[in-house]
Amino acid sequence: MSFLATPQFLTFDAPLALQSGASIRDYTLAYETYGTLNADRSNAVLICHALNASHHVAGVYEGQPKSEGWWDNMIGPGKSVDTNRFFVIGINNLGSCFGSTGPMHTHPDTGRVYGADFPVITVEDWVNAQARLLDALGIQQLAAVMGGSLGGMQALSWTLQYPERMRHAVVVASAPNLNAENIAFNEVARRAIVTDPDFHGGHFYEHNVVPKRGLRIARMIGHITYLSDDVMNEKFGRELREAVVDSATGYRYSTQDVEFQIESYLRYQGDKFSEYFDANTYLLITRALDYFDPARAFGGSLSAALAQARCRFLLVSFSTDWRFSPQRSREIVKGLLDNRRDVSYAEIDAPHGHDAFLLDDPRYLNVVRAYFEREVAA
Amino acid sequence: MSFLATPQFLTFDAPLALQSGASIRDYTLAYETYGTLNADRSNAVLICHALNASHHVAGVYEGQPKSEGWWDNMIGPGKSVDTNRFFVIGINNLGSCFGSTGPMHTHPDTGRVYGADFPVITVEDWVNAQARLLDALGIQQLAAVMGGSLGGMQALSWTLQYPERMRHAVVVASAPNLNAENIAFNEVARRAIVTDPDFHGGHFYEHNVVPKRGLRIARMIGHITYLSDDVMNEKFGRELREAVVDSATGYRYSTQDVEFQIESYLRYQGDKFSEYFDANTYLLITRALDYFDPARAFGGSLSAALAQARCRFLLVSFSTDWRFSPQRSREIVKGLLDNRRDVSYAEIDAPHGHDAFLLDDPRYLNVVRAYFEREVAA
Repeated sequence: MSFLATPQFLTFDAPLALQSGASIRDYTLAYETYGTLNADRSNAVLICHALNASHHVAGVYEGQPKSEGWWDNMIGPGKSVDTNRFFVIGINNLGSCFGSTGPMHTHPDTGRVYGADFPVITVEDWVNAQARLLDALGIQQLAAVMGGSLGGMQALSWTLQYPERMRHAVVVASAPNLNAENIAFNEVARRAIVTDPDFHGGHFYEHNVVPKRGLRIARMIGHITYLSDDVMNEKFGRELREAVVDSATGYRYSTQDVEFQIESYLRYQGDKFSEYFDANTYLLITRALDYFDPARAFGGSLSAALAQARCRFLLVSFSTDWRFSPQRSREIVKGLLDNRRDVSYAEIDAPHGHDAFLLDDPRYLNVVRAYFEREVAA
Repeated sequence: MSFLATPQFLTFDAPLALQSGASIRDYTLAYETYGTLNADRSNAVLICHALNASHHVAGVYEGQPKSEGWWDNMIGPGKSVDTNRFFVIGINNLGSCFGSTGPMHTHPDTGRVYGADFPVITVEDWVNAQARLLDALGIQQLAAVMGGSLGGMQALSWTLQYPERMRHAVVVASAPNLNAENIAFNEVARRAIVTDPDFHGGHFYEHNVVPKRGLRIARMIGHITYLSDDVMNEKFGRELREAVVDSATGYRYSTQDVEFQIESYLRYQGDKFSEYFDANTYLLITRALDYFDPARAFGGSLSAALAQARCRFLLVSFSTDWRFSPQRSREIVKGLLDNRRDVSYAEIDAPHGHDAFLLDDPRYLNVVRAYFEREVAA
């Protein structure tokens, strides 16, 4: 069993100006910290989360032995990011459904639940909100910002928005922006949610329903893109859930029943997700992904955008990740090298696709460990 | 403009036994023929269609100059499959919504529209139905059976079910079965359709509605898998549909409006498809894809299954096809070579993904032309 974690909450009254031109005020951020902030406040590591995660990065909650944080294999006493050495901060982003202020909370201006009126949030907005939390915690400069996937985009954005407030960025299984196919998958998921009759234009809370059909479809699509072809074939292949004994082929011949194991797995994942994830949050987070594109303000030049960065970098990608392929990480590496920045890059040969960034691959965990021991702690 | 095509219809009273154990009777098959059957009835080429296609393979309908058949670039006078030389037959499969008997027709036993009661149909069933049509046309042996994608599976199944009734099989952009990821995408599309409240358990006709939401999602998913990453990036990239002038980024910051061109394209494709395609047909055809697996009856050995084949083969695959990758075609080639069958194989370096099998790639069209001129016509 891991160590005990305790969620904390901090409310910010002052409005936060958002990239869209809107602003948000009276919002709460949920966060957790592990380890001890040293005397000169220089050992803090900020962890940014991806789509389906939260401030609960490591440890377990009291009385809930199976409640490990989503990066518990990476972060803790003696682990790759060693909480005996570093003060690790997990933060839940604005718009989430796991603790920080989100669409299911009350809009202070209207007294009505935000729903679809929650402002559109970008990666840059999240980073600004995170910086405010650090101000409140009295941390001027981070030892490192670290994240995987969408979390990696936040780490990258930190290096451009607050170059002097960090010494290292660890960007795992990420990309400098979404490509057309990435946006396409997000859009299909969003259409499934928005066209669910139970969505009610995003104000479903008032109708006491949840657009579960749409959320299920969204999650099933997501799961396909998180896994590699290889791992799907190895794990499920064409295996039937239950072969019919008196059928020559074992097939039950039905268009609607579950026939193959992969179908059963996806339906289960979709059902589970639709029980706890908020539909408006899904729309917000996929849009934040779509919009992230630091090169955009520099005429499409990633090198020009990355010229703002000052810190040192570790980039990690996984060979079978087809959502954010190694090629996308290499684009970032190239952009940094164009600016003569200090970059380490590891391409891990792992079978698990995008999901690999959450899994126990020893080579991956060792690369991160070595970087923190030799570079961040140095 | 192409030559004129005329759809024909033939009704079969006798029941056709299906692989599921069910049977179907009093069904009609729609077909078209191009060119002239020679005196010894030896120059017939059967074309099998994929998911969203029909018996209208080539030519145009009178008064409809833009109604070219789906393989009009491949088949016609002087084309790769030359109708001056071959008698080409296009056939619409059972369960389709384009002319042959399908779920929107009346069940002869009940007098009620089939809907979800239409029997589950397999690739093998389609091939049996096609063989009956050939019987009716007085054609004992085909010069070739040809198809792309799901059509290629039918061509392959022909070589195993009726090895003596054909001299050549042309199998394009196909696979010996679906892998887990292929099944997964089919399943998500089916769940989107089946969980649409307008599906009514497949009997939506009686309610005068169509599960358009589900069909739209299904088609959007399909389109993503038909295109390569490269061609999507080249065609759409991150281009906005209409940049907002007074926004620094050009973004309109909306989770529901169309922002990117790729979104606009997918929504358009989904809307169009939902206007004409039948939801029950979509379920049936994707299930036929899932079920196809000739190696299954041979303990998973494709080589053992292909030992039944007698004809000569041309296999074609496309480098960027990630739905049915070249690797899948190579599996078939290997299985045939294990049996010392005569196989030609072309792997075309094309950027367009799975869709390439329908497009005007000169190398591809020339490979097929050369095979028909040198091998089939010989």
